[in-house]
Amino acid sequence: MVGIYRSKRLFLGLLFGFVISFSLRVHGQNIWPMPKMASSGSSTLRLSRNFELRTYRSNYLDSSGILKEAFERMVHLITAGHTAKTDFPASNVQDSAGIVLNKFDDTRTSLPVLAGINIAIRSPNETLNFGIDESYYLHVPDTGSILFARIEASTVFGALHAIETFSQLCYFNSTTKALELHSAPWTIYDLPRFPYRGLLIADTSRHYLPVPEIKSVIDSMAYSKLNVLHWHIVDDQSFPFEVPSYRKLWKGAYSSSERYTIDDAADIVNYAERRGVNVLAEIDVPGHTSSWGVGYPSLWPSNNCRNPLDVSNEFAFEVIDGILSDFSKVFKFNFVHLGGDEVYMGKALNDNNMTLSDGYRYFVLRVQNIAMSYGYDIINWEETFNNFGDKLSPKTVVHNWLGERVAQKVVAAGLRCIVSNQNKWYLDHLDVSWQAFYDNEPLTDISNPDQQKLILGGEVCMWGEQIDMSNIQRTIWPRAAAAAERLWTPLEKLAKHPIEVRMRLAHFRCLLNQRGVQAAPLDIFGRYIPQDPGSCINQ
Amino acid sequence: MVGIYRSKRLFLGLLFGFVISFSLRVHGQNIWPMPKMASSGSSTLRLSRNFELRTYRSNYLDSSGILKEAFERMVHLITAGHTAKTDFPASNVQDSAGIVLNKFDDTRTSLPVLAGINIAIRSPNETLNFGIDESYYLHVPDTGSILFARIEASTVFGALHAIETFSQLCYFNSTTKALELHSAPWTIYDLPRFPYRGLLIADTSRHYLPVPEIKSVIDSMAYSKLNVLHWHIVDDQSFPFEVPSYRKLWKGAYSSSERYTIDDAADIVNYAERRGVNVLAEIDVPGHTSSWGVGYPSLWPSNNCRNPLDVSNEFAFEVIDGILSDFSKVFKFNFVHLGGDEVYMGKALNDNNMTLSDGYRYFVLRVQNIAMSYGYDIINWEETFNNFGDKLSPKTVVHNWLGERVAQKVVAAGLRCIVSNQNKWYLDHLDVSWQAFYDNEPLTDISNPDQQKLILGGEVCMWGEQIDMSNIQRTIWPRAAAAAERLWTPLEKLAKHPIEVRMRLAHFRCLLNQRGVQAAPLDIFGRYIPQDPGSCINQ
Repeated sequence: MVGIYRSKRLFLGLLFGFVISFSLRVHGQNIWPMPKMASSGSSTLRLSRNFELRTYRSNYLDSSGILKEAFERMVHLITAGHTAKTDFPASNVQDSAGIVLNKFDDTRTSLPVLAGINIAIRSPNETLNFGIDESYYLHVPDTGSILFARIEASTVFGALHAIETFSQLCYFNSTTKALELHSAPWTIYDLPRFPYRGLLIADTSRHYLPVPEIKSVIDSMAYSKLNVLHWHIVDDQSFPFEVPSYRKLWKGAYSSSERYTIDDAADIVNYAERRGVNVLAEIDVPGHTSSWGVGYPSLWPSNNCRNPLDVSNEFAFEVIDGILSDFSKVFKFNFVHLGGDEVYMGKALNDNNMTLSDGYRYFVLRVQNIAMSYGYDIINWEETFNNFGDKLSPKTVVHNWLGERVAQKVVAAGLRCIVSNQNKWYLDHLDVSWQAFYDNEPLTDISNPDQQKLILGGEVCMWGEQIDMSNIQRTIWPRAAAAAERLWTPLEKLAKHPIEVRMRLAHFRCLLNQRGVQAAPLDIFGRYIPQDPGSCINQ
Repeated sequence: MVGIYRSKRLFLGLLFGFVISFSLRVHGQNIWPMPKMASSGSSTLRLSRNFELRTYRSNYLDSSGILKEAFERMVHLITAGHTAKTDFPASNVQDSAGIVLNKFDDTRTSLPVLAGINIAIRSPNETLNFGIDESYYLHVPDTGSILFARIEASTVFGALHAIETFSQLCYFNSTTKALELHSAPWTIYDLPRFPYRGLLIADTSRHYLPVPEIKSVIDSMAYSKLNVLHWHIVDDQSFPFEVPSYRKLWKGAYSSSERYTIDDAADIVNYAERRGVNVLAEIDVPGHTSSWGVGYPSLWPSNNCRNPLDVSNEFAFEVIDGILSDFSKVFKFNFVHLGGDEVYMGKALNDNNMTLSDGYRYFVLRVQNIAMSYGYDIINWEETFNNFGDKLSPKTVVHNWLGERVAQKVVAAGLRCIVSNQNKWYLDHLDVSWQAFYDNEPLTDISNPDQQKLILGGEVCMWGEQIDMSNIQRTIWPRAAAAAERLWTPLEKLAKHPIEVRMRLAHFRCLLNQRGVQAAPLDIFGRYIPQDPGSCINQ
């Protein structure tokens, strides 16, 4: 009850009401992330109750239904859980194909009716991987006898981005009970600035995340056009993953009900790919491996020293080979992540023949070769570069996390780099605001175009020491979305109008909530609690 | 990364592993809430890949599919999002009905196979309402040629509880990839201690909750056998609800996208009823009504006094009549909640003919009569009883929230009561632990059996001043589940073994997480954050 809130709230409420009207009506372009080019008008259209997908002149056959499912998900999302009216009287206009359409079938508002979307895709290929063409063209007309939106893309995955963008132009009209599209005509041309736009969420060793939760996060990634889920599967605390080649490894799981089968992994990869999201699997070696010895105690250097893995123990390399062999059957992304971070030199890396640092280097390079033998390119955390960058395989992508000035050194050395500097892009750092996430520029102090190309993109990291099913989504969102726009939108369009960016992100946060994502209020820091009653768009 | 956690975590991890094995294996009866009577054995069964629903000798025809949908939801929940193996070789045993079954079709474990469930329901009626028979009998055999579980219930809603209980006996076996049932044979007889087991979540004036989120909470209510969703729809801050009789009322919504249509309400009621959950709608009058005047300014006593409603303004009663008339078309529960709390006497309740307190009483009683004219029984917050209890309609249910000693006075006066004492059962009081929720006894100091019958039950309240889509579920769960067992399980079976209760609730919290509910760790208080890595069952 808390009656003391009452009077104050009312006046805030009225103020909020005004601000929202402003935000929803004046800002036609509430798209997140902002496209490369977008022009809009002032017409409102109503989606036909027979709103349909067409693929006229498309080379993509959609034999596995990726496009059809995405279209159906989109229509479902636009309704935002409302019961849309479907009994508008039909006027039985017929289009050229003889399909019954209704150009003006809303007797109350007589809005022009959008009959559907035609999606033309140039490539018949539906293999997702790093560096594919994600660009798209979207046009929504507001004049003509029969109105169809038009999407053109090189790949089905570009078309998925276009469908997501289209969904953000539409809304459920609570007065007419119809699905409507605002600010038509629209003409949008769009493509990402960086090919790698990642989110590390699945730190599933510190806390187990149920499979449906991982899928929910994949859904939310697609809403902001992130395209790499970095699955940090195992770590010191637990080994929840089934490795058919070494079945005892998942004895290191917290419990029999906190495990992922190899079929679960295949299911997650398939689910992600159908949404344009790659899954990057990681085994973090030689450190962060204490849980490996629960099933195979001989992997522990000794009972009082349980990591890093022992460089003089051939069995360690056999197990890693088995893991990567099994990975290669399920994780089809070009890259595998081999960790290599926070290796605290101990006896384990010592060998009669080498020093501690030699042992560390030997271990990392040997594991790189194993991974490459399975066709993978390699990602390693930055310590490997910091310690022996000149020895790393040229196929190595260095994953920056510790330092501010590492990316510049990596690309200067001719290696590729992913930016995740912890002071800006670690989601478990709750004191970092969404503005700081938004402002973190991967190309800082990298002016040479050839070196710029070596920055593949960036990744925000949701480490799991204090994260579980109960708070992960609200810790990720909306801050991860701020980074997503930094990674997608052309530099010259970013952060030109702070108030507009904030209002648009607030709108996107409300959209995430509508779609079942527990995105937290924007203010003030990560995982914030609404302090007062109010509209989601003002919090 | 945060490597400092490593070594400490490992040992905790191993310890946790042991505790979980203990909890998952030794505690056969991990059912929440604990049934009235339950006996179990030590056999493990595997659910047939053709696991089927039968309704032999049932008088309930399931014409609207309530039972069939519940059965399918249950099978889906048991898999916990895993990919269950379905290619076990069949041995083609045929049962009496000629259906192909497999008594031992798991070649690796050769477990007895449970072929399905037969559900026999005595009443063909599927109208949910207050006081229906929710009892059920569940038997799971472990011997016989063809194994079928058996459920018997008076109503389909008792059968829904039985299906929920059955689902808590089953789990996905990550090693065999099969769905299994543990501790068979089971014999359970169960029924609730109180007919009213409520959760106030939908305080949708302070923060709007999207329709899918309200449905998610209804799902989670059914998991702990709560049966009343108290929807506090409107308040001072906003009026998100469509009232066809007075269409301007929802001009008081925060925005056009933060509204519920009357169709949404019907959809939510139907969704809830199909899960055995009643929806109690509330209009809180004469206080908490500031938002009403946004659409109809004449409802404001004056510009600087916007509530309570003006007792001398006939239009206020006309609007209330219109709201209750529209309510009666959608909200079919016996009861409607008319609020009546926190009325700060002001000019508004004054009239030439009466004093302030007379105005308050006159208003409440007149609105009671309007509600009764639409066939409703009435629920009012306790202030109405505290101020003029002897004048309330005998059909009134008094909703206790303020005081500790009110329920005793209410039943002594011969009125019915629902207990929600804020110091124990307000979920927005984060300093109240799950143990305090569990220990709050509605019948405290009520020994007279006739008076005990007047306590319909209790309700935990999730007020929304600091609650929105991003944090509501984790603020409700697991504490609401603790109250749910208090309201369901016989007094003599409650809290006998604190460690057992804690372990069972921890298990239920993990189950909620598996099912997509963001239930927070048990310790220490409400909406807690996991402090360290670990298994969900230890947090």
